[in-house]
Amino acid sequence: MTVDENPYADLLGIKVLELEVGMARVSAVAKPEHTNHLGYAHGGFLYSVADCAFELASNSHGVDAVGLTTSMEFHRSSKVGATIVAIARETHLGKTIATYHIEVTSDNKRIASFTGTVYRKN
Amino acid sequence: MTVDENPYADLLGIKVLELEVGMARVSAVAKPEHTNHLGYAHGGFLYSVADCAFELASNSHGVDAVGLTTSMEFHRSSKVGATIVAIARETHLGKTIATYHIEVTSDNKRIASFTGTVYRKN
Amino acid sequence: MTVDENPYADLLGIKVLELEVGMARVSAVAKPEHTNHLGYAHGGFLYSVADCAFELASNSHGVDAVGLTTSMEFHRSSKVGATIVAIARETHLGKTIATYHIEVTSDNKRIASFTGTVYRKN
Amino acid sequence: MTVDENPYADLLGIKVLELEVGMARVSAVAKPEHTNHLGYAHGGFLYSVADCAFELASNSHGVDAVGLTTSMEFHRSSKVGATIVAIARETHLGKTIATYHIEVTSDNKRIASFTGTVYRKN
Repeated sequence: MTVDENPYADLLGIKVLELEVGMARVSAVAKPEHTNHLGYAHGGFLYSVADCAFELASNSHGVDAVGLTTSMEFHRSSKVGATIVAIARETHLGKTIATYHIEVTSDNKRIASFTGTVYRKN
Repeated sequence: MTVDENPYADLLGIKVLELEVGMARVSAVAKPEHTNHLGYAHGGFLYSVADCAFELASNSHGVDAVGLTTSMEFHRSSKVGATIVAIARETHLGKTIATYHIEVTSDNKRIASFTGTVYRKN
Repeated sequence: MTVDENPYADLLGIKVLELEVGMARVSAVAKPEHTNHLGYAHGGFLYSVADCAFELASNSHGVDAVGLTTSMEFHRSSKVGATIVAIARETHLGKTIATYHIEVTSDNKRIASFTGTVYRKN
Repeated sequence: MTVDENPYADLLGIKVLELEVGMARVSAVAKPEHTNHLGYAHGGFLYSVADCAFELASNSHGVDAVGLTTSMEFHRSSKVGATIVAIARETHLGKTIATYHIEVTSDNKRIASFTGTVYRKN
């Protein structure tokens, strides 16, 4: 995934650390422009980081995968300067439907959990 | 919510259209930098718009509310130039927990649905 | 939906009150055998009532619909003797994917919310 | 958890296989009365099995834990006679909020995934 391929990931400074079939790891640094009114990394920013890992892992099979549903649980808040890492792993791969679980960590602590299901365009 | 108060909303160009106790309506235009590798508005961008409406509605009672869990269903894709509108309404208001349902539309069509639950710091 | 057609709904005493295309309303009475260790209606029981409304509404178009993902928020607890009513309404109907929102009430108070997405076998 | 303590688990034939602090494993056999109109184990039945594991694991710390939100993804259908096993593991334990992830399997295949968040009454 380069800047040209995913403009939104580029806007947020999301970098791909690792990409395999059914698995992806990305990271981004929480900057001042990614914060909410309380000064913490915004939920939408954390979701976007997790969503990019989900997108990469679910599209890693050479078949277009479109997000259908996601759920996210927020465990801890993150401050400006924190590096956010999201790892997506495949929970289930069916012919037309697949599900991924994404762990979001910072400083090796779990800060959020994300589950996403895609429709695969065969 | 002004630029100074919510930097992340400002980064994405999210505008507050309406804000009442327990309800908020916001909008943003999908620009080229908000797209995914297929050229559609990124799921993380749509989530962020919905999340801002959720944040405003849940914090409208004068009590700090922190997002605990969210779920989102994606119904239709949106192209560059589309105006995305998110309306958050209160489903349940308890002393420490509250839930909001957010409709995300574009051109008066429902493009996504979002449900969020907060912890209220009394 | 009769006893012969849906044994699980029958086991839990779930009755169909109303069924239209894209909409269903069902109810069940919380009995002692539907409670948890605290004496309240079990979350699995409340989910099952909502799930039956979801199942009926999503299968009301004459096309087999299979549940893919659901999310549920629990707002209030219910005691033995309470009548639980669940109303499912169609949020989005696509060719292969559809989403339903289910309100769960008791004594006209919202006690839970449920969102479900199905795969439609065309 | 015995029959006297959790009537709903008893109604569905759910057995506790293992219970530790922050972890629980339960199982149940899908019987004819647990099926839907297609003859497969009902989604509400599978949810109830997962929910019991969630309930046990989240209440294993000696503090009352009440379910706030859950999400569930259904991967594969199960026939009558199948043994359904659900394992709940703690994803995050906070002072007032905790999250659990539950794997649901049958014949060592993942058939569903469940995530649940509780409010802990300290």
